[in-house]
Amino acid sequence: MKLYELGELGLINLIREVTNKAKRPQSHPWQKLLVGIGDDASAWQNDSNIQLVTTDSLVENVHFDLDVISWEELGWKSLAVSLSDIAAMGGLPEYALVSLALPPHIEVDNIYQFYTSITQVANQFHTIICGGDIVAAPNILITTTVFGYSNLKSILLRSAASPGEQIAVTGHLGLSSAGLEALKNKINLDDETSSNLRRGHFNPIPRIQEGQTLLQHGIRCAIDISDGLISDLEHICEASGVNATVKIDQVPVHPIVRENFPNYERFALHGGEDYELLFTGGKDLIHHIKQLLDCPVTVIGDIREKNLSGKVSLIDSNGDTIPYEIAGWEHFRQ
Amino acid sequence: MKLYELGELGLINLIREVTNKAKRPQSHPWQKLLVGIGDDASAWQNDSNIQLVTTDSLVENVHFDLDVISWEELGWKSLAVSLSDIAAMGGLPEYALVSLALPPHIEVDNIYQFYTSITQVANQFHTIICGGDIVAAPNILITTTVFGYSNLKSILLRSAASPGEQIAVTGHLGLSSAGLEALKNKINLDDETSSNLRRGHFNPIPRIQEGQTLLQHGIRCAIDISDGLISDLEHICEASGVNATVKIDQVPVHPIVRENFPNYERFALHGGEDYELLFTGGKDLIHHIKQLLDCPVTVIGDIREKNLSGKVSLIDSNGDTIPYEIAGWEHFRQ
Repeated sequence: MKLYELGELGLINLIREVTNKAKRPQSHPWQKLLVGIGDDASAWQNDSNIQLVTTDSLVENVHFDLDVISWEELGWKSLAVSLSDIAAMGGLPEYALVSLALPPHIEVDNIYQFYTSITQVANQFHTIICGGDIVAAPNILITTTVFGYSNLKSILLRSAASPGEQIAVTGHLGLSSAGLEALKNKINLDDETSSNLRRGHFNPIPRIQEGQTLLQHGIRCAIDISDGLISDLEHICEASGVNATVKIDQVPVHPIVRENFPNYERFALHGGEDYELLFTGGKDLIHHIKQLLDCPVTVIGDIREKNLSGKVSLIDSNGDTIPYEIAGWEHFRQ
Repeated sequence: MKLYELGELGLINLIREVTNKAKRPQSHPWQKLLVGIGDDASAWQNDSNIQLVTTDSLVENVHFDLDVISWEELGWKSLAVSLSDIAAMGGLPEYALVSLALPPHIEVDNIYQFYTSITQVANQFHTIICGGDIVAAPNILITTTVFGYSNLKSILLRSAASPGEQIAVTGHLGLSSAGLEALKNKINLDDETSSNLRRGHFNPIPRIQEGQTLLQHGIRCAIDISDGLISDLEHICEASGVNATVKIDQVPVHPIVRENFPNYERFALHGGEDYELLFTGGKDLIHHIKQLLDCPVTVIGDIREKNLSGKVSLIDSNGDTIPYEIAGWEHFRQ
């Protein structure tokens, strides 16, 4: 069987199965492991805190296209997406490794721009780039690994949603994927709109502070929106063993997307890479969180008992269920 | 300027310079950082121990050739080389991330073999594979990241050599690079010899226990031999601000290499990838270490004050200096 036939999910299950054969519940590292293979980050219990680790790889012409993205933007985005995984667990980042596979003919100036920018985002979120590995390769590949911690006794998990909870999201959705579409198709828009769309796609802001606030005030379940609102909500449902209902007219579509793209709902529901936080909690708690956070917080639906319908149901303003097709990211599609 | 003109060392200096611009000595993560960019591993002070992190990337057709290495061997070697970096600091490994960039047409069976083998080496050294990232790419690239710790108040460093100390090495040298040469050139040898050479190259054993013993008994300076004995000794000299003298007839060439390869000295001095530990210490301490370790320990020379001669001097049995050319690994050579 070829990898593209097995698919990404099948591969992750295979890896989990093989590596778990070594599991010895009495051994020290296994006892301390809180979150292992299959989540966005790993977590283990240290003596005085919970250690968080996450890693992301970006491949040239798969995840980014140097005809469209600048080296500065590439630097920012490479680290920001890993910082966002730490944010989604309610953690604080501390250290980062940046590994690069680079063709030898690359201009040194480009690498300088990349590191200047990645250092800026690291600095902004109090993270130190402390190492990495540099190798020659035919294509550019960037791997960022971020180490963070939670000083509380818990972390935010995608597996902690309970029936009866509300589903909420920070900020607005759709700007990143609409931005990519505008760039790819060279859509003609005014300069300010174009610039906002570009930043939406290339300069995501990890919600570190917001993740901290969620955790500190009692939220237990969160994920960052990387694959898309519906896909990531499905990840929560899968991990928590619940279903979810989303009221489509409640979804906070970014105003720029709503104004400039007729199919704005698709970007907000399925676009992904907005790196907003999607979380669940009791009604009163979410109301409290709304007042604590500086960014918008929008309730978009609720968590239900698991049943035979699809994991996520989309409801229109009449209360009718709208069918949808997941257009989530599948790495090994041919 | 192109990357191949700048070279690997120039690139590392550039990265260190750019990322250090963000340095704020008063900030918490900078205060705790013990070893940053430019070493084989990074280290920072936790509340109760020292955290160690190291990462290595292996690129298809740059670091390995699937016409020669099996997927099982690739799994073993990928993790073993990172574990060796932890060994060289006197640490104990605990967790590992394995990230793979894979072309979609790869056979799933191969990936199964890879993870079975990487799980075996993880298990043997009490390390848990707790995560990673899987992405599609035109070429195979493997990144392993290992987290370890030292419970002592210190770690082994390449920067801790002092004039007057002896230089010692564990085990025998040259088997790995001679093994690669035998495979590449299809040298005709008996089955047992061929098999030993193959294992020497593809199944290195990280010296975790030995590194622990060195640190516990007072050794302060060590490195693992990945680039080659002379290259890695130069790294020690560079980082410690010292010179070194090596008596060529004291170098413990692996018996298989000595018997089967006329140019055996080249493999032992410059071959690399033996993953033995190269360390320095006072005469009495090294004598004591020899009795503690189960593997051979050989004194090969001594550390001198820094002077104007080359960092490492090679001396023959007559006491004459032998000129040599470093054939170390340079990633971006065209």
